[in-house]
Amino acid sequence: MRKDLRLISQEKDKKTIIEIGDLRIGEDFMVIAGPCAVENEKQTIETAKAVKKAGANMLRGGAFKPRTSPYAFQGLGLKGLKILEKAKRETGLPIVTEVIDSRDVSWISEYADVLQIGARNMQNFSLLKEVGKADRPVLLKRGMYSTLKEWLSCAEYILSEGNKNVILCERGIRTFETYTRNTLDLSMVPAVKECTHLPVVVDPSHGTGRKSLIEPMSLAAVAAGANGLIVEVHNNPEVAMSDKDQQFNPEEFLVFMQHVRKLSEMMKNL
Amino acid sequence: MRKDLRLISQEKDKKTIIEIGDLRIGEDFMVIAGPCAVENEKQTIETAKAVKKAGANMLRGGAFKPRTSPYAFQGLGLKGLKILEKAKRETGLPIVTEVIDSRDVSWISEYADVLQIGARNMQNFSLLKEVGKADRPVLLKRGMYSTLKEWLSCAEYILSEGNKNVILCERGIRTFETYTRNTLDLSMVPAVKECTHLPVVVDPSHGTGRKSLIEPMSLAAVAAGANGLIVEVHNNPEVAMSDKDQQFNPEEFLVFMQHVRKLSEMMKNL
Amino acid sequence: MRKDLRLISQEKDKKTIIEIGDLRIGEDFMVIAGPCAVENEKQTIETAKAVKKAGANMLRGGAFKPRTSPYAFQGLGLKGLKILEKAKRETGLPIVTEVIDSRDVSWISEYADVLQIGARNMQNFSLLKEVGKADRPVLLKRGMYSTLKEWLSCAEYILSEGNKNVILCERGIRTFETYTRNTLDLSMVPAVKECTHLPVVVDPSHGTGRKSLIEPMSLAAVAAGANGLIVEVHNNPEVAMSDKDQQFNPEEFLVFMQHVRKLSEMMKNL
Amino acid sequence: MRKDLRLISQEKDKKTIIEIGDLRIGEDFMVIAGPCAVENEKQTIETAKAVKKAGANMLRGGAFKPRTSPYAFQGLGLKGLKILEKAKRETGLPIVTEVIDSRDVSWISEYADVLQIGARNMQNFSLLKEVGKADRPVLLKRGMYSTLKEWLSCAEYILSEGNKNVILCERGIRTFETYTRNTLDLSMVPAVKECTHLPVVVDPSHGTGRKSLIEPMSLAAVAAGANGLIVEVHNNPEVAMSDKDQQFNPEEFLVFMQHVRKLSEMMKNL
Repeated sequence: MRKDLRLISQEKDKKTIIEIGDLRIGEDFMVIAGPCAVENEKQTIETAKAVKKAGANMLRGGAFKPRTSPYAFQGLGLKGLKILEKAKRETGLPIVTEVIDSRDVSWISEYADVLQIGARNMQNFSLLKEVGKADRPVLLKRGMYSTLKEWLSCAEYILSEGNKNVILCERGIRTFETYTRNTLDLSMVPAVKECTHLPVVVDPSHGTGRKSLIEPMSLAAVAAGANGLIVEVHNNPEVAMSDKDQQFNPEEFLVFMQHVRKLSEMMKNL
Repeated sequence: MRKDLRLISQEKDKKTIIEIGDLRIGEDFMVIAGPCAVENEKQTIETAKAVKKAGANMLRGGAFKPRTSPYAFQGLGLKGLKILEKAKRETGLPIVTEVIDSRDVSWISEYADVLQIGARNMQNFSLLKEVGKADRPVLLKRGMYSTLKEWLSCAEYILSEGNKNVILCERGIRTFETYTRNTLDLSMVPAVKECTHLPVVVDPSHGTGRKSLIEPMSLAAVAAGANGLIVEVHNNPEVAMSDKDQQFNPEEFLVFMQHVRKLSEMMKNL
Repeated sequence: MRKDLRLISQEKDKKTIIEIGDLRIGEDFMVIAGPCAVENEKQTIETAKAVKKAGANMLRGGAFKPRTSPYAFQGLGLKGLKILEKAKRETGLPIVTEVIDSRDVSWISEYADVLQIGARNMQNFSLLKEVGKADRPVLLKRGMYSTLKEWLSCAEYILSEGNKNVILCERGIRTFETYTRNTLDLSMVPAVKECTHLPVVVDPSHGTGRKSLIEPMSLAAVAAGANGLIVEVHNNPEVAMSDKDQQFNPEEFLVFMQHVRKLSEMMKNL
Repeated sequence: MRKDLRLISQEKDKKTIIEIGDLRIGEDFMVIAGPCAVENEKQTIETAKAVKKAGANMLRGGAFKPRTSPYAFQGLGLKGLKILEKAKRETGLPIVTEVIDSRDVSWISEYADVLQIGARNMQNFSLLKEVGKADRPVLLKRGMYSTLKEWLSCAEYILSEGNKNVILCERGIRTFETYTRNTLDLSMVPAVKECTHLPVVVDPSHGTGRKSLIEPMSLAAVAAGANGLIVEVHNNPEVAMSDKDQQFNPEEFLVFMQHVRKLSEMMKNL
């Protein structure tokens, strides 16, 4: 891997710590939570307050949604970003949001604390180069069919443009299994740690697609050594415009956080 | 499929014919040929003349190359387009070239007769919307892991923006097989014909990754009913900057074309 | 591959011809046809007569069916073999039938002209060794997820026990595509010819799972150079106990055979 | 799933506990450890003593090895079983060993406390029926490409023959990832618990194929709720006849067991 991953290889032994406010990503265990999509102000603010109360460290929420069908809800765009800005003001939570077009990187950076690259855009090299020039950390999701090496090459694209703050995110790969929406590949957690200096987080919501599997797989991610989780929470999942079956409601998320935090603490004594 | 693919479903029975000069894509069997990447003027012009002489109908050649590694040759960009323009002037062959960034669609359209969307960008929805607004036909490659339905949804993105001229291109999917670079899924040829009104072509070069398999798989594509082929040819494959193992030299391509054309004719009498 | 495939490698240049009656498999293009399962005498005899009339060279029919569910029809066993024996007597067609248990190889060999190893048993090494000792040719289907190398290793198991008469059968692999039941990997036809001396046939019925795709994919298989086809035909597919959607009725098979035979003849002049 | 999985569905709420000596599988967390293959008496006895000392609950070891190549070491057969018998006598550890041929089930049952069905034989239905008639618990590995439903249908085959003592074992599925040998699908642990009453164990040795990943993935399996682990240990991995890269030596296994046991205890307080 060495030649194609020269920056990752060079700095393998220096653990990358990314600071956002008080949070030290790569060192502190962190939880990013929030709705799949920003649907309206009430939904977003209520959800933001709930996840803050439960102990989440950042707020996630999509303003630009890459959807399989051109006729599905595509996100609120700028209006959604302004709602996220308000949620940040009210809760103090930094914002993670997805960017899907190279033209949007600079102005979305004014609203986002972390820029997310989704699985379908993992190999959108123009977009990778553009976020590589931004002054915001990038959360890079693994493509649905990509190997570790391909994923790390995409991180290298970002690093090679000068942006050293990349967070890798395992979100499940496509397999023949249909019981789960994707197959969450937790072996990528120790694999990323072996090969890179970058933090790695796990998305059990997309990774399983089933609410009942999110907690066991999150605990597994913690035990495997993940630096954090990114979890979908909606103030009222029954009416969610996307990903109904995998969003926690606030009460479920509260219990979930207690278990995750407890295991995270216990792991320090292992 | 009906709701998400409403334009494709509505027009299923009207066969789409795309006219470029004298060529009627969807009706005439066509062969697109040329180098993987535009490397320099001599290579491109020589290759263009060779494929013209062998009977190709269009010239392919990448000026912007999506590469797994940031350190691999990324294409000549505008300079490459100008070389393609010259090749077109000298041979009369229309140009098919890839676009990888939504910002580039309008000006690349001045050089290209057909805009190609590569497999890795199949679900780059911003790019799809942009080529949907262009006045050039789009050759849409199937993603390496995507289903027919996902692929057609991407075509629907383009159609829904007003561009009715979409050519679908099967280029192989990722499987566990390692003998071939990808697994060319020829069943997509009759499947596309069953579900849509759009022309479908086959890329046996990327679909197999082995020169020795290109002819048998091209003949198979013809027998399965494909509307055309897109094949990599290089004036000197040994020194090619990419895809060495799957580019024909001019002599090989000449023999190949004779067999393909002959079968294509014979199929009319089946 | 050489060390693990020593018999295949040694004899790569000697084309294996398997003689069954007048038929020379590997030289003559052949079609094996018949029902998925032997259900009763009337169904089997009628189907056998129909495929004979249409020009098939061998009769297929399962007496032992490997089924995903323990509660699905498991085949008629010995009774099914006796029905096949009668069908052979009445039509002269040699019999291809599946063996699924190492204990059954010797006595099934008394009824079968060719022993079939199904995809799920491709790596049932005990069974491979047993058919390797039998004096009947073996039709070895490729496993649903197996690579060319793994498949050929299974052929090597049979060869290494002394049975030189192995026919390889591509029947589709599992991929993410759902439009087709499996993905028929026709590139295996030229690949097998490059790596071995063995005949290779194609099963478009299981390979597509859709009646409408069987003819185009069969023509493609012929064009790719396959030595034959194995196709499911049922005297009355609507009441078939398995594989309803992919069995031809006699009239459909008759038309199919005319097209296949015509292309097979035309290919000699390519 | 209900109709095809009627026994599993009926008894879903009655947790199956399988007793072997003092061990209550499905209730006690258990670790099965031992060499990939029984190579000779010294290797097996030494390894058995080492895993016993480290706290393993059962001894694994293959006497019949399903190997991709016919020329690879196929196991010691009966001689291997006699060595396992001696190891049991010296350590008191019950024996788990693989059966690969329906003819061998009855006599191997005299040596084995648990009969293992390997991934390649998961859909060897003749073998499943035979172990379904045996009076030994069966450890059923998931096939490399199989879905949860297909796997559970194979368990149903065993249950439907009268043997109620089935232990499911997730051992990794084939994906496009090459960094790991297989992709360990830990989501199957909570999925099996949702759908069945059967114990489920995890094989991180085959599931990762890399020694460095075995501990993090084992901890993850414990956190996900697995009922146990099956781990490869060899008294001297450097000279192992198979699976060199994924077998612990006794010292590594000792440390591993301390971490696993500690987490297993801590999970009770979560």
